[in-house]
Amino acid sequence: MIYLDNAATTLRKPEAVIEAVADAMKNMGNSGRGSGSTSLRASRVIYEARRTLTEFFGGTDPSRLVFTSNSTEGLNMAIRGIFVPGDHVITTELEHNSVLRPLYGEQEQNGISLTIVKSGKQGTVDYEGIEAAIRPETRAVICTHASNLTGNVVDLYRMGQIAKRNGLLFVVDASQTAGVLPIDIERMQIDVLCFTGHKSLMGPQGTGGLYVREEVEIRPFKSGGTGVHSFLKKQPDDYPEHLEAGTLNGHGIAGLLAAVREIQNIGLSAIYEKEHRFMQQFYDGVREIPGIKIYGDFSDPAAVRCPVVSLNIGDMDASEVSDWLQEEFGIITRAGAHCAPLMHQYFQTEKQGMVRFSFSYYNKEEEVLAAVRGVKNIAAAQQ
Amino acid sequence: MIYLDNAATTLRKPEAVIEAVADAMKNMGNSGRGSGSTSLRASRVIYEARRTLTEFFGGTDPSRLVFTSNSTEGLNMAIRGIFVPGDHVITTELEHNSVLRPLYGEQEQNGISLTIVKSGKQGTVDYEGIEAAIRPETRAVICTHASNLTGNVVDLYRMGQIAKRNGLLFVVDASQTAGVLPIDIERMQIDVLCFTGHKSLMGPQGTGGLYVREEVEIRPFKSGGTGVHSFLKKQPDDYPEHLEAGTLNGHGIAGLLAAVREIQNIGLSAIYEKEHRFMQQFYDGVREIPGIKIYGDFSDPAAVRCPVVSLNIGDMDASEVSDWLQEEFGIITRAGAHCAPLMHQYFQTEKQGMVRFSFSYYNKEEEVLAAVRGVKNIAAAQQ
Repeated sequence: MIYLDNAATTLRKPEAVIEAVADAMKNMGNSGRGSGSTSLRASRVIYEARRTLTEFFGGTDPSRLVFTSNSTEGLNMAIRGIFVPGDHVITTELEHNSVLRPLYGEQEQNGISLTIVKSGKQGTVDYEGIEAAIRPETRAVICTHASNLTGNVVDLYRMGQIAKRNGLLFVVDASQTAGVLPIDIERMQIDVLCFTGHKSLMGPQGTGGLYVREEVEIRPFKSGGTGVHSFLKKQPDDYPEHLEAGTLNGHGIAGLLAAVREIQNIGLSAIYEKEHRFMQQFYDGVREIPGIKIYGDFSDPAAVRCPVVSLNIGDMDASEVSDWLQEEFGIITRAGAHCAPLMHQYFQTEKQGMVRFSFSYYNKEEEVLAAVRGVKNIAAAQQ
Repeated sequence: MIYLDNAATTLRKPEAVIEAVADAMKNMGNSGRGSGSTSLRASRVIYEARRTLTEFFGGTDPSRLVFTSNSTEGLNMAIRGIFVPGDHVITTELEHNSVLRPLYGEQEQNGISLTIVKSGKQGTVDYEGIEAAIRPETRAVICTHASNLTGNVVDLYRMGQIAKRNGLLFVVDASQTAGVLPIDIERMQIDVLCFTGHKSLMGPQGTGGLYVREEVEIRPFKSGGTGVHSFLKKQPDDYPEHLEAGTLNGHGIAGLLAAVREIQNIGLSAIYEKEHRFMQQFYDGVREIPGIKIYGDFSDPAAVRCPVVSLNIGDMDASEVSDWLQEEFGIITRAGAHCAPLMHQYFQTEKQGMVRFSFSYYNKEEEVLAAVRGVKNIAAAQQ
């Protein structure tokens, strides 16, 4: 089997991650609950994970690194916890439903207004459009770091500057980039960074989080036990407890810590270079096949991109192509709408869907070449 | 080390649970995302977990079994997603902050009214008091299945009858009981059952869920990607997607499935019998020690209880006792307020706290006896 659906979840996790989870399942108590050695061991691992992730993302205060079960939960916390009626929010057509649906919810239930800025060429972000959409009541810009469909990256430095020049909060969905592209909360002027553990960070499912800059106030999304301040009637004001309730996924967080350490050992740039090479090799191999349509902007070979290529073959339904790739060649891709409805509307592929190929550090060159041959083969059969 | 803090999290997990998680981390894709074999494998494991848990809890429809990251998340979903302004809700003094804080939140932000029924003897539930608190606008009774402090159990059959006789919804927090006491959603007339995976179910941290009876409507707590209906602007109406957004903790759920199967293999009654025996043995060993105060109702030896004994030694701070037990005898207990503020107010132990001993199927008799000796020793040193 050749697994090329790493943008959905990385299938191959470093051995150290699996070991860390297994080890945690043998001797980790409940963090922050009492002072027993097992509880303290859990607290130490979790604190170390907060510290390591904070540093990894260029944040400054580990207590502002809040754990969640995935990006979606972090995005819901931020989007449903920041705004008040009358606020205006700007976002892009590149967004995933994990950004769009909470924003639509705020529109409907909390009286915010929303501008979804039209894309520029090939579905990329139109920065001038973002700036033009700013109004006096605009409160925030919320955007993905990269499209999960096209792999095109949003320049967070530039977007951060636009946000800060206009006094706006800057909320980033790093689902597709944490672990493959450098992220620097301070230098990019990010106010809230949401990430997931199980994609490019190569950690366990059920992990993720958000980093909340100190000046930003988010209303608690969940409330419940925190192990501290038990007699308060609401969540404590202190972070991370303000946004964390109930027992954390300590076992998963132990794995996530091991994953980030593995990435630091390999080096983020080595990971990016390899994944980018696979992506480019695949793109170069398929781009001139007759009948192929590739989505997104590939015009600048020097541009930073995510290791994702989405395509269609003629009018074939994307699911049919994906099934064919699997059955005939053992290649796993992802077909369908990819939870990014506005990108599909932009490319007019609502019905056809797209076949997405996404690469990981653990893929091999021969797997990439096999994928090229697979696509060629199916395309040839259509002529 | 003797671990007696199983009511916080079970430290020892069955080997099959650890293996299932490790195995999932090697070959599980993202469930419900595309039709690749890795994704389908994930979907199958997760469906099997839904089916097994539904059956285990006496539910009827696996699609109404929704996965969450812990009990707290499920309780927040239910409590924050059911009521409308003007509704009245009844609960008990036995509740954990995972029930109380969301209810206080509803009071403050959603205009519901709340009655917390005063406890009967030794902090047990006063069923007549529950019934007397019902008003025309009462919408639900919400209660724990057992106090995490005293181990006293709420008779869910009786409470379910009270609820249904009065046309009320019945929401149950099974955090302390799922995996040790039998739960039968149908026969107990439970509308929403919230449970966690990492306590008596002996599964991984980061797992849990809620079962929602078909007629009950809960507004989505989170919104985001579901892998289906991508062009809808809100969460689909279909369960489980209605209440699940983002990538599930598939690795953890695989472990939870293995855990429930292990429990089914051992037999719930064998688990209860053994844990109850440990609890009784400990209680009998410490009850007559001079200066000991034990909390909760132990008057009927035939009564069903959770395997929990909470106590204090004279006026000693609970944390001091707990630390002493650990340092001198290697016994891990939990001290402090246990996130159950109203029980502490009832027993007037807000400042002293309580030392909780909680047992698991994997404890051994000699560990229980060692704990008795430890308590005797500390109490003797105080005379």
